[in-house]
Amino acid sequence: MARPALAIIAGAGRLPAEIAAEAAGRGEAVAILPLKGFADADFASYAQYPVSLIDPKGVLQELSRAGADRVILAGAVHRPGLGMVRSGIQAVRHLEEIRNVLEGGDDNLLRGVIAFLEKHGYAVVGVRDVAPSLMAPVGTLGHLSPSPAELEGIAIGRRALAAMGADDIGQGVIVAQKRVLAVEAAEGTDNMIRRVALLRRPGLFGRLLRHGRPPVAEQDGGVLVKAAKPEQDFRADLPGIGPRTVRLARKAGLAGIAIEAGNVLVLERDATIAAADAANLFLVGV
Amino acid sequence: MARPALAIIAGAGRLPAEIAAEAAGRGEAVAILPLKGFADADFASYAQYPVSLIDPKGVLQELSRAGADRVILAGAVHRPGLGMVRSGIQAVRHLEEIRNVLEGGDDNLLRGVIAFLEKHGYAVVGVRDVAPSLMAPVGTLGHLSPSPAELEGIAIGRRALAAMGADDIGQGVIVAQKRVLAVEAAEGTDNMIRRVALLRRPGLFGRLLRHGRPPVAEQDGGVLVKAAKPEQDFRADLPGIGPRTVRLARKAGLAGIAIEAGNVLVLERDATIAAADAANLFLVGV
Repeated sequence: MARPALAIIAGAGRLPAEIAAEAAGRGEAVAILPLKGFADADFASYAQYPVSLIDPKGVLQELSRAGADRVILAGAVHRPGLGMVRSGIQAVRHLEEIRNVLEGGDDNLLRGVIAFLEKHGYAVVGVRDVAPSLMAPVGTLGHLSPSPAELEGIAIGRRALAAMGADDIGQGVIVAQKRVLAVEAAEGTDNMIRRVALLRRPGLFGRLLRHGRPPVAEQDGGVLVKAAKPEQDFRADLPGIGPRTVRLARKAGLAGIAIEAGNVLVLERDATIAAADAANLFLVGV
Repeated sequence: MARPALAIIAGAGRLPAEIAAEAAGRGEAVAILPLKGFADADFASYAQYPVSLIDPKGVLQELSRAGADRVILAGAVHRPGLGMVRSGIQAVRHLEEIRNVLEGGDDNLLRGVIAFLEKHGYAVVGVRDVAPSLMAPVGTLGHLSPSPAELEGIAIGRRALAAMGADDIGQGVIVAQKRVLAVEAAEGTDNMIRRVALLRRPGLFGRLLRHGRPPVAEQDGGVLVKAAKPEQDFRADLPGIGPRTVRLARKAGLAGIAIEAGNVLVLERDATIAAADAANLFLVGV
């Protein structure tokens, strides 16, 4: 019998393929279970077992067919493919179930999926274990480095994140001029960055968007600091940045991004670093 | 010579009148300096010396005419009266100055005003000193009281605020199901509450508003907790709630509001309590 495979249940984006490449590169057997309606990367060089988010028993069958003993969940499933939901009689039959999964009782549906897989005997692993090279390294990733003042902002952000960690609050803060302008909780990093962009928007339209709040004084500069929570389940809720994070940070007038080395994923690393360099943002693992 | 007066530089809303009533009620001489274009309460029973936000020397002249030795700044100036800015040649002459004040170098223009007044020999006092009865008392204000689970949420929120206090972060958090859903920093309490309402919005439109984030699981319940920062200057930056806070909290599906007794202002107390009772929200000073 062949060696048990690492099964990658793949959502959207390139992360599943990046994980597969790293695992296969060190000689692991890799099986891809592309999620229909979500997976969109090129998995041509791997054994593939397409599965549906709305058919949990089918996932178990395919895992068994793939000869997998470990499973990793990777890729985006946040934006439900409406096409998938609308396609065919199965979706109509499972409509209530789909609603429960997509809008449902847990704000991170992956946790429910992990519990389901573990109940059926599969070890669920995380990117940190399987593809550690995808996590942020220590040091500057692009051309730019933070200034001494920016390093101080990073230190303030890390201290704030550490203080909040005991209460399982956010993974991200934005610091400018030694002040914490925004704290991430349930809204996510992207929305936190967008908020700072709005706070800084000049003029009457900006004022309306701010609902009458005064603008954030510092028109430019500041740093996004991202770290893991102390109790983070890295299999379900992996902090990460990518090209979009860089784009949003640029729009918000930030000077750079600092991420916790070893604990924050850098999605599409080459594109992310290129975007940071093009935007004159520093990108540093700390 | 008459006893020196307490001068109230009055912005919009009823707070200046409420402060005046409390101070006059205990026998203090009170002079109102209504800010043209902002002040909108009834000050008919007090000596009035109208002043303009765009004429700092005029403010000093009126304070002298009023025989004031102490000054309190009260009422909203966040939404600049465009009418005021557009009215007359003076505004055109001072356009750059107005811009600096409204959009300017400090996100709380009151701090600059306080420094200006103190430089000219006036003691600037705060609501806590002059009208302590306007601050939140300990205990339930309306008909409803928090449940044991809600009290636990309040405790989590207070602990989170205390942990963040060292870094001068927000005065507010929203806690539901023992999780901190939102943390206030520079965006203000209202925008934080609006964010939770968006996070909870069901359906496709809500999903678009959330930019693809999953909805916050807890469709109802949760508590807004507001407290002062350890280093708060209560003369410039007074944490407060009012009827609008209650309306927003209801829209966000919260169960209630907990405010730090003695340190958080309850604007239009009767209306605020009535709004909370009507919305089935508890309102408690802790």
